[in-house]
Amino acid sequence: MNKHKYRLVETLVIKDPRGNLTVGNFGVDVPFDPKRYFIIYQVPLVDIRGEHAHKECHQFLLCLRGSVVAVADDGVQREEFQLNRPDCGLYMPPMTWGTQYKYSPDALLLVFASHLYDSSDYIRDYAEFISLTNRF
Amino acid sequence: MNKHKYRLVETLVIKDPRGNLTVGNFGVDVPFDPKRYFIIYQVPLVDIRGEHAHKECHQFLLCLRGSVVAVADDGVQREEFQLNRPDCGLYMPPMTWGTQYKYSPDALLLVFASHLYDSSDYIRDYAEFISLTNRF
Repeated sequence: MNKHKYRLVETLVIKDPRGNLTVGNFGVDVPFDPKRYFIIYQVPLVDIRGEHAHKECHQFLLCLRGSVVAVADDGVQREEFQLNRPDCGLYMPPMTWGTQYKYSPDALLLVFASHLYDSSDYIRDYAEFISLTNRF
Repeated sequence: MNKHKYRLVETLVIKDPRGNLTVGNFGVDVPFDPKRYFIIYQVPLVDIRGEHAHKECHQFLLCLRGSVVAVADDGVQREEFQLNRPDCGLYMPPMTWGTQYKYSPDALLLVFASHLYDSSDYIRDYAEFISLTNRF
């Protein structure tokens, strides 16, 4: 496994008559220590989000309700993932071009980020992204 | 404000025609760096969870969907909180007796914890909790 490549991560589920629980450890299941989280909700069905990469920031995406399609692209390979379970997240290392679309009306997306918000960390132009991936 | 007391924390909301987003920074909105998260879902309506305190572990509770009533008790004061928004969490410092109940059928509770799981960090007896709070 290439640790620098995007990948799905399954987390431990504890099923119980008192309710289900899934747990993820930072630095282990989520392979970084987060500086922030954000939650995306009430997204119109037609919308496309993302369409950028980060130079330094790692992200981990969990769709806790409903579903969303996440596309990850490392400049060499592009894959689509249907995210629809609280116990399976998508790890996106830095220099991964990410796009999310086909949000179901009830979708709830939780994202952990390794860095605080920094507009200079974003790459918003795909051609620039591709030219930068060749340097890494 | 007593920084060692349980309290509600409102997080920034960015409303947008492309969907809503709420963001929390660790060490700021969530006043610790988490070592793990867990997600509780599909809880029967009648169930009561929690009913324990932690000696060292800080927790932060967010109800992302549906609602749940969280009771926080620091040994001096006890308060009930209706959690039902992704942009308002309950911070529970160590030595807070916590109970959650009245889960709505669709409730989804996200919890951040400052420590990895450690069974020796739990206080499960209320009388013991009260006797220990007197030492702090």
